[in-house]
Parts: sequence; C-alpha cells; structure tokens
Amino acid sequence: MQIHSAIPDLRHALRNHGRVVFVPTMGNLHDGHLSLMVQAREHGHTVVASIFVNRLQFGPNEDFEKYPRTFEADCEKLREADIDLLFAPTEADLYPERQQYYVDPPGIQNQLEGEVRPGHFRGVATVVLKLFNIVQPQVAVFGKKDYQQLMILRNMTRQLALPIEIVGGETVRADDGLALSSRNGYLSPSERSEAPRLYRILSGIREAVLAGDKDFERLERAATVELDSHGWKTDYVAIRQQSDLQVPLAGNNPLVVLAASRLGTPRLIDNIDI
Amino acid sequence: MQIHSAIPDLRHALRNHGRVVFVPTMGNLHDGHLSLMVQAREHGHTVVASIFVNRLQFGPNEDFEKYPRTFEADCEKLREADIDLLFAPTEADLYPERQQYYVDPPGIQNQLEGEVRPGHFRGVATVVLKLFNIVQPQVAVFGKKDYQQLMILRNMTRQLALPIEIVGGETVRADDGLALSSRNGYLSPSERSEAPRLYRILSGIREAVLAGDKDFERLERAATVELDSHGWKTDYVAIRQQSDLQVPLAGNNPLVVLAASRLGTPRLIDNIDI
Repeated sequence: MQIHSAIPDLRHALRNHGRVVFVPTMGNLHDGHLSLMVQAREHGHTVVASIFVNRLQFGPNEDFEKYPRTFEADCEKLREADIDLLFAPTEADLYPERQQYYVDPPGIQNQLEGEVRPGHFRGVATVVLKLFNIVQPQVAVFGKKDYQQLMILRNMTRQLALPIEIVGGETVRADDGLALSSRNGYLSPSERSEAPRLYRILSGIREAVLAGDKDFERLERAATVELDSHGWKTDYVAIRQQSDLQVPLAGNNPLVVLAASRLGTPRLIDNIDI
Repeated sequence: MQIHSAIPDLRHALRNHGRVVFVPTMGNLHDGHLSLMVQAREHGHTVVASIFVNRLQFGPNEDFEKYPRTFEADCEKLREADIDLLFAPTEADLYPERQQYYVDPPGIQNQLEGEVRPGHFRGVATVVLKLFNIVQPQVAVFGKKDYQQLMILRNMTRQLALPIEIVGGETVRADDGLALSSRNGYLSPSERSEAPRLYRILSGIREAVLAGDKDFERLERAATVELDSHGWKTDYVAIRQQSDLQVPLAGNNPLVVLAASRLGTPRLIDNIDI
C-alpha cells in the first residue's frame, strides 16, 4: 500500500490507474469502515482510502482536537483490507490557507443532524468535493449509517455534474442489531444492553408503515416516548423521503426512518430504508 | 468542429484528447472573446469553447430572456478560430432539475460588481464548477476585463483543489483604448466618443500610484467626480489588491484599479493592473 500526504504525489501515483474507487474516512476505523472497503473492491480496480479529520465539519461545541486519531492501527487495518493507496493529507496539505469557498447545500443541511450541528454539512460537502477533485475517482463509497451525509453528497455530486458514481455501503450491525460506531465504546455495560432498542424501534416503524400505517407523526412521537422512557434523550425520530430527506408528501416516494438519541454519554444515530 | 449539447456525448468526445484548454462564454462573441480563443490555442492541444447563457448569474432586475443569443454567427466565428469542440448545452442539459447546491464565494462576492448584482458570482462560480466537472480541462481561459470574475474563479479553483490552471486573457481595446464589449453597441455616436475617458482615467490612476501617490481614496473620488461631470453615473472606481480585491493594507501587494460606470444606457466596466 502506498501512502501519500502531498497532493501532487497522490495525483502522480493515480495516473493511468484504471477505475478508481474512493472511500473517504476520518480514521479510527472499525468493521463498518472495513465493510465499505470490501464493497469498494467490487466496484473497481484501484481502491483509494483517505484519512483526514476535517476541521471544517466540527461545530464550535464539538471537540476537533479530541477526535480519536489512531493512524498506525488504521494503516494496519487498511493493509489487511488490501487497500491500494491511502491518502492521508496533513491540515497544511488540504487547507494551506483559510478555506473561503464552500459548497453550500440546500436547507436540509440545517435539519435532523444539521439542527444540532450547524455548519456540519457545509464542511462535509466542501472537504469531500476537494477530495474528489484530488483523487478523481470513478466511484466513491459512503456508509448508509450517516444517511443524511450520503444523501447530501449524492445530490451534490449529481447537481455539480461530477462524473462519479456514489455507492451507499450497508450498515454493519452487531448480532443484536446495534449499528457499529466508534461511539459504542463509550456505552456502559447496561447501556450497551439497552442500545439495540433503537434499531428495534426503527424496525417496528418500518413494519407499521409497510402494513399501511400513514400516521407518521404518531409513529415518530410514540417512538420518541418509548426511547425517552428507557433513559434515552431523543433528538429526532423522523420518517422522510429517501431522495432528499424532506417530509413525505402524497405519493409513493421511497421512505427512510432516521433517529438520533443520546444514551448516557454517546449520541447514537441509526436509520432503515422502508 | 464538433458540437455537442448532451453531457455524455461531450465526455465521450473528450476521451484521450491530450491537454484540453477550455474557454467558457455566454455567446454573442466579439473580438475580445476570439482573442481568448487564440490565447487558448497556445496552452494546449484541444480547444473547447462553450456557449451557455447561465440563468443562475442573472439577478431579479436583469433580463435573462433578452440577453442577445446569436448562435449561428457564434459558431461561424468559432469555426474560423479553429476551435476543436463547442459545448452548447441546453438549459435541460445543465440544469435538469432546480439547482440547490451552490459554490458560495466569500464576502467579496457582494462588493464591486456584486454590490449591484446580488447572487451574480454565486451563479458564475456554480456554473463554471459544473462546466469544469463536465469538460475536465487542464487549462481554462477567462478575460481580464471581468477581473472580479477571474479572481473569484481563480481562487475557487485553487481552494477547491481543482487540477486546472486558470489563465487571464488580456483585454482587447479599440485604438482609442475603449475595452471591447457587446455593450458598446448600445452607445450613441457622441457617447462612443466620450467612452474612452474611462480607460484614460484608469491609466491616469495607474501612473499616479506608480509615481508614489498613496492617497487611494482621493484618487478614487477625483476619478468619480471627473466621470460624473462628463455625463457618467459611476458605481465605483476602486484600487484593490489583485489577489483578492480587498482594500490594500500596508505592504507591496500587486494592485489593480477597477471601475464601473453608466454612460447613457450601457454600464461599462474596465480595469488595469498597476
């Protein structure tokens, strides 16, 4: 596996490299990330991963400095996953000057995850566009666990006419349904046994909607009450359109149910396509 | 010369095409545009021009529908200029859905030209990024007459890590110094003989600054008074830093003097590097 931090070195290494599949990450890799690497391999000849903790997507109340950085362990995992090339820029490589030109996503950037993380998706969209311009992949893979991020990046890519196919990687779950996340490590043993409730509740909503229940607001409210009565502090449970995460209007647009809730210290998110 | 309107056709035609130089235009071509085509030829193997009147960069008070469209005459000029490929998308090709993802330039987008044209540079930056993503040139040429546009696109390209060299094409002038512009056609004969005053005044400021005059505000004010006393209605005369068009602070950053003023119906703009 080659490792580059300088943009010209990376571009040189990628010349004449056939179909490039790209998996951007912020490092601190777990099995969820590694399953994206496996899916990436199915989509092209050369798999490029990146590790970059992106200051732009951290809010004023979020601790950029304390984000876990585990570079050596990450490299070992990427080598085992047979990644061809790792792009690991420094802050000076990617932001040699203060970033002043941003990709500005539409209003959905301020809802759901964006409501508690102002500026987050603008920072995500901008860094991913820069990474795309540097790596110039034919395919890029993002986890479906961060559904709103995946939706925004998919729509950005289409609307900015980037010649890149966006692939949503399936969420990897523990046997009891809990979605894998670096944050699960902050759960106490009793919280860990409570945590799968989030997935069970989302699955229940999915079943109810498929069985014909159209009272989405009642379903969302009931799920919030159930979570909070078991010690959660719920930010949202929301049934939305898959394409743009807007509140569904009449019609048969494909739906997704998303939730974010705090259990003890960590804030867990999850979602299921309906 | 090949002509394409559909994005997939264009991409196919550009495969394996060596070093591509791109000159985006809104059509209604005059000798200023054609000089950009000549300069483009010096920078690569394949010269691609585009013609697209971009709705996004027109303000609510600007008449998108009435913008002059002279497609057949433009094609003839481009053929004579030996352009290899013309990209002439329809509105449905470039905006198949309502544009919701924008490139948002920094505050300078609301000064100078941006003060009278709110949203203009956001629209310019967004369409040029889309055109770049479609054509994927190694070099792109923009006229220095639209200096603020050139500056914003140059900084956007660098900040978004696009692998594209931005070339500023020199302004073409009539023998009396008037910068070529489609708007000159709206000048009456007496206005046409008055019009070169703009360039003379900017040249005078250039000489004064080079001779050591550092009272930029007085120079700007005097120029405005002189223009307006000859029947102009001046929006601005401004001495700025070339790199970002900010008001120059202490130091020896390269400067430019820019002006916009209405003479009769048309609004003329011009600038000179100092």
